Amino acid sequence: VSEILAVDLGGTNIRVARFPSAQPPATNLSKTPTHAAEGTEAVVARILQAIDALAPPSRSGMRIGIGAPGPLDPRRGRVFGAPNLPGWTDVPLRDLVAAHFGCPVAIGNDANLAALAEWRFGAGRGSSDMIYLTISTGIGGGVISDGRLLLGTHGLAAEVGHMTIQMDGPVCSCGQRGHLEAIASGPGIARIAAQRLAAGEASTLRDQADGKRELTAEAVGRAARQGDPLASRVIDEAAVAIGCHLANLLHAYNPQVVVFGGGVMQLGDLLLPRIEATARAQVMHPAYLEGFRIARAELGDDVGLIGAMTLASEL
Amino acid sequence: VSEILAVDLGGTNIRVARFPSAQPPATNLSKTPTHAAEGTEAVVARILQAIDALAPPSRSGMRIGIGAPGPLDPRRGRVFGAPNLPGWTDVPLRDLVAAHFGCPVAIGNDANLAALAEWRFGAGRGSSDMIYLTISTGIGGGVISDGRLLLGTHGLAAEVGHMTIQMDGPVCSCGQRGHLEAIASGPGIARIAAQRLAAGEASTLRDQADGKRELTAEAVGRAARQGDPLASRVIDEAAVAIGCHLANLLHAYNPQVVVFGGGVMQLGDLLLPRIEATARAQVMHPAYLEGFRIARAELGDDVGLIGAMTLASEL
Repeated sequence: VSEILAVDLGGTNIRVARFPSAQPPATNLSKTPTHAAEGTEAVVARILQAIDALAPPSRSGMRIGIGAPGPLDPRRGRVFGAPNLPGWTDVPLRDLVAAHFGCPVAIGNDANLAALAEWRFGAGRGSSDMIYLTISTGIGGGVISDGRLLLGTHGLAAEVGHMTIQMDGPVCSCGQRGHLEAIASGPGIARIAAQRLAAGEASTLRDQADGKRELTAEAVGRAARQGDPLASRVIDEAAVAIGCHLANLLHAYNPQVVVFGGGVMQLGDLLLPRIEATARAQVMHPAYLEGFRIARAELGDDVGLIGAMTLASEL
Repeated sequence: VSEILAVDLGGTNIRVARFPSAQPPATNLSKTPTHAAEGTEAVVARILQAIDALAPPSRSGMRIGIGAPGPLDPRRGRVFGAPNLPGWTDVPLRDLVAAHFGCPVAIGNDANLAALAEWRFGAGRGSSDMIYLTISTGIGGGVISDGRLLLGTHGLAAEVGHMTIQMDGPVCSCGQRGHLEAIASGPGIARIAAQRLAAGEASTLRDQADGKRELTAEAVGRAARQGDPLASRVIDEAAVAIGCHLANLLHAYNPQVVVFGGGVMQLGDLLLPRIEATARAQVMHPAYLEGFRIARAELGDDVGLIGAMTLASEL
């Protein structure tokens, strides 16, 4: 087994890790600010530098796996950009890195790679059909189908947060309407709470909303834990929306296990029982629930790096 | 290549076809009334009889493929029943037929098998990622992902008509709320038109609705063709719902081609331009549309038999 260098390209940081034996844990880790505003060339240069600093002395036999946000084409190795990576309209990142190091390189969407990591080394171990759902600033995920990452023709499949569950619902970060992300992401939860406050509903959240700081899903969760009725209702509605869409995803992919990750899962104790009950009530046939389970992600902050390593290990 | 017997088990008829060279066309075809009300045992006996009548003299090397409606488990060979197959709660159809003929047997959901047929021999030929969508009394389909039928852990994946696009929408035949099937199937279109008439809207459909015969999607389509405003609006709304969900399915599976079949596609000239325009406007990124096309099913009434044959050819 050759050494693998894994890269997690984010809007804030470029993280790199060295996996000498193609499995966790990493032996070396580094973190460099992305400075995304400086543009594509500067960021690519920083990626090359960061890999260089962690790469083994001999680069023959080295492999590199890279996770990047937003839609990208893993087959052609091109990154289409994301809200936190302005200017990346169609960057041939795989070939740029491969040309520099003269070794095999694979790239993947960060949520897809997190799915791959949780499937191989985390909460989805041993399953053949798995959905990973990350609920955070956005809602993304990945699907393992019959033991393989589901990609679709350009690698854009499994955008599980960007599906309409309410045609006349709120507008999503992607510009479309009624997507799960618009309703149940962190900003979605905060916005719905803010609208209820603006409509005059009573809540302990009012003091915070009137202040300088913007309302967050975390604050809504905290208020819900303390019994605030408005906050509890908003959290409950988000869970029902996620559960309803989870039933959709069971019909779409018929998985054995669904793994939930992302920052909003810090409210998992509030959300998950209601998500699971809703999904179980809304499947069209009980056969979908045979052997089915919901699990929480296990790999924490390194999930993207472990996923990039896993992808490269298949090169 | 050995001979293949294909069976299309429907609520009205059992159709059987003989494919001597594992490709269309069939050399012999038969049709027997299902008489589903007589129960599982009687129907299974009729299936065996119908196969027997068309099977070649030598059954060594024969293979059998069977398509059946509703959710079923192709891996374990069990049929869970459907509204038009009462009493089929968990029938080991594959093993019953295999034991009788002593040859390999495969079963599949009829919509999945139609997808397989259109992919191998019809409108989806040559693609690696395809969605087949049949819009009829119900809405079903099948997905080809990276050159394979997408099954999921129990073979229940790709129930593409039973996904919620409007959480507070009408109740579906399956009992759940806001599924595409409830909004845009033949009965869905007819019901929405009937509701508008009942609410007092003017329409040339009023004479028909007031008569003895129930309103049908066909009648709504006919009125729309003649410029009736209510009928045109109902057809347009159905197309928008289908197009909205088609964008969901592009995000879920990222196909190269979507094939539309089913009886409601007799209104395809009214529906498809609006379906396509809506889907194209509602994808989250233009990369989904690169090389993407919409096509009409090519295989007609024999699509289920050709799909069952294709499935058996892989045994």
